[in-house]
Amino acid sequence: MKGQKSAATGPHVLRRMNVEAVLAALRGVEGRTARVADLAALTGLSRPAVTRALTELKDCGLVEFTSAAGTQQLGRPAQQVRFRAGAGYVAGIDIGPHSVLVMIADLSGKVLASHRATVHPGTAGPGLFALVRSALTTAADAADVPLAQLWAVSTGTPGIVDRERGEVLLAPSIRDWAGLPAVALLRDWLHCPVSIDNDVNLAVLAERLHGTGEGPEPEGGAAPAGGTGSDCLVLVHWGRRIGTGIVIDGRPYRGNSAAAGELGFIDLACGPDGPAGSRPADGMGPFEQLVGADAIHRLALEAGAPVGEAKDIAPLFAAARAGDATAVAVVEQVAARFARGLAALLLVLDPGRVVIGGGVSRAGEVLLRPVRRHLESRTLVPVTVEASALGERAVALGAVRHALELAEERVTAAFAPKESAP
Amino acid sequence: MKGQKSAATGPHVLRRMNVEAVLAALRGVEGRTARVADLAALTGLSRPAVTRALTELKDCGLVEFTSAAGTQQLGRPAQQVRFRAGAGYVAGIDIGPHSVLVMIADLSGKVLASHRATVHPGTAGPGLFALVRSALTTAADAADVPLAQLWAVSTGTPGIVDRERGEVLLAPSIRDWAGLPAVALLRDWLHCPVSIDNDVNLAVLAERLHGTGEGPEPEGGAAPAGGTGSDCLVLVHWGRRIGTGIVIDGRPYRGNSAAAGELGFIDLACGPDGPAGSRPADGMGPFEQLVGADAIHRLALEAGAPVGEAKDIAPLFAAARAGDATAVAVVEQVAARFARGLAALLLVLDPGRVVIGGGVSRAGEVLLRPVRRHLESRTLVPVTVEASALGERAVALGAVRHALELAEERVTAAFAPKESAP
Repeated sequence: MKGQKSAATGPHVLRRMNVEAVLAALRGVEGRTARVADLAALTGLSRPAVTRALTELKDCGLVEFTSAAGTQQLGRPAQQVRFRAGAGYVAGIDIGPHSVLVMIADLSGKVLASHRATVHPGTAGPGLFALVRSALTTAADAADVPLAQLWAVSTGTPGIVDRERGEVLLAPSIRDWAGLPAVALLRDWLHCPVSIDNDVNLAVLAERLHGTGEGPEPEGGAAPAGGTGSDCLVLVHWGRRIGTGIVIDGRPYRGNSAAAGELGFIDLACGPDGPAGSRPADGMGPFEQLVGADAIHRLALEAGAPVGEAKDIAPLFAAARAGDATAVAVVEQVAARFARGLAALLLVLDPGRVVIGGGVSRAGEVLLRPVRRHLESRTLVPVTVEASALGERAVALGAVRHALELAEERVTAAFAPKESAP
Repeated sequence: MKGQKSAATGPHVLRRMNVEAVLAALRGVEGRTARVADLAALTGLSRPAVTRALTELKDCGLVEFTSAAGTQQLGRPAQQVRFRAGAGYVAGIDIGPHSVLVMIADLSGKVLASHRATVHPGTAGPGLFALVRSALTTAADAADVPLAQLWAVSTGTPGIVDRERGEVLLAPSIRDWAGLPAVALLRDWLHCPVSIDNDVNLAVLAERLHGTGEGPEPEGGAAPAGGTGSDCLVLVHWGRRIGTGIVIDGRPYRGNSAAAGELGFIDLACGPDGPAGSRPADGMGPFEQLVGADAIHRLALEAGAPVGEAKDIAPLFAAARAGDATAVAVVEQVAARFARGLAALLLVLDPGRVVIGGGVSRAGEVLLRPVRRHLESRTLVPVTVEASALGERAVALGAVRHALELAEERVTAAFAPKESAP
């Protein structure tokens, strides 16, 4: 560890760190406008160092110098510097089996336009990619942003993703999506950095920022309870499939093979000596088969509780909310099953806070209240369980957040010469 | 995050980082002896910066300047600098329900002496603390190290630990141990930094360094497979109790309430809709009741497989190794149960590598082979499962490692002035 740290102390790395620090400080200031002295105080850097960093940021259009209105002092006006949120733009894209959601944002993270396109049943990989292209074009048009002004694009998709190679390795819910070089195709088209990640991994980034209550850009993030533990947030996607996104100390935790958080495959289906279940053709895991949206629909049908058409389970939760005894019993069963699997994850990670997203989470408190009750007897320490406030926008919002990081990396990397071999 | 980074670029922080970098580089060099030019190349720092750092390290006795023997050049001998491993000492202590193991090491991490004291059944907190004191005194005497020369002491103990307050919050296996201010008492006695941590959290630090095959001090640690994933190692303690220590990117992962890795409480005891089991008086979790050492002993007894006195399960594994059909069947059942619970942890963390320690792991391959086979059908990506090579020394070795960090922090902190308020 120390060996790595030492390599990070050379003058060119320091210069890049200073640019990043000044940029972060400026973006964190109310109105994104500040004086050099303010930025020096915020960053702990000397005024000449701040000025050097600002000059570099000005050269690439990210900041502009202005005269402070109304603060004129004896002699000349105090010079201010302003972050130019409109110097460039980013796109965050949620590519799912049912719809594609594109958001266009400026460099402050403000979403200027979004567009959701429906994926028709049976759409395969290449058709999906064409839909992504057209949805991105539509959203950029709506935001009045030429595609050439996109500084970075981040995409999220279900399945296991090789981020380095920009490929989807396993995506049972979208036909012929795995193996398609979607990132390479987007890069060739857009000529900017493009990344792909598991959708829940991106959604949890957005949930983490949202949940802190510190506004849109809480630099530093949420402090862990008591200050002694690890800062961990888990987002559970609870729909037909069940998966989780994990953020540890502000960084996505993906595991050794990008397969962390696969709660849907935990096996609680039988007694202590039961065999491992066989994998069905649709690749659903044991926990998904036990308590995913389809399983809830089946349990409700079997019990004679209300359900809607096309496997809609909203009527079940509405009936439970209204006090229907059969529906309440089914919800109780669902909550008990879900809590047992979630408890396994909580016992391993002790995250302190869990956000539940996905279609099932729209049931809200009628479902989450019994989940919390069942968790009490199955966990060792308290945990906060809440429904996602971002809902179906979480993946695209997390993608925007990640695209902003990509854009910033590109900018600050421009100030650092290539590392020479020792 | 950027806001924090910016605060780390002031000149005093840089000075401390340089001292740390030079110290780490010097400790990593063969023979722990190097020239200023070597250290400049290794750290990427300028020669004047290296010399400044070395002067500070010399002032506190950590390095000494020597003339390089046999390398005399025209004129004067090339000056070398040597890390003084004997400038101070540390102690690592494993405080368990059955024994206390103390190791005394020099600042290079070399263990000079160790002493194991037996904890008599029924020993309560205060008696255990007295035993720790006497074992530490005995080990230090054996190493010829006066207690006043201990720079730091790290202790590991079962249970959930509040590291900040230095207290054990929950330790079902040792009577009256929770709540005892052991760390404060040790600090008052020794006048040096003393820490306490969960024992498996320390053991995993030692396993991680051992497993890399890069010698005793692999700075930088093991690279994750493929370079794209997270670097995560899990150590499972499999004895009467079952717990895990987790290291992510080189740092212990403890969770929000220091309760991460509690595999022993995962509930696989019943079918999908079974109730949560009641907690027995000894605080054993559902998975511990299912497949801990006591459960294995009971399963063997019930099946008529060989066991020894005092719940010794070694005869079971010996018989299985010799091909006894009944013993093989019991081991198969144990492996299947264990794999099902371990799979839950693997699906959440995707660690790539798992080390199995604790008494049950001494069974070796006759047990681990079927565990691996059962994991195959229950996990999504490959994982390496191996028995601990450090065995019962792992906790104390990990404590030594952590004590070295504490000692180094104390040294380098001495070079950094107190942070002033902005």
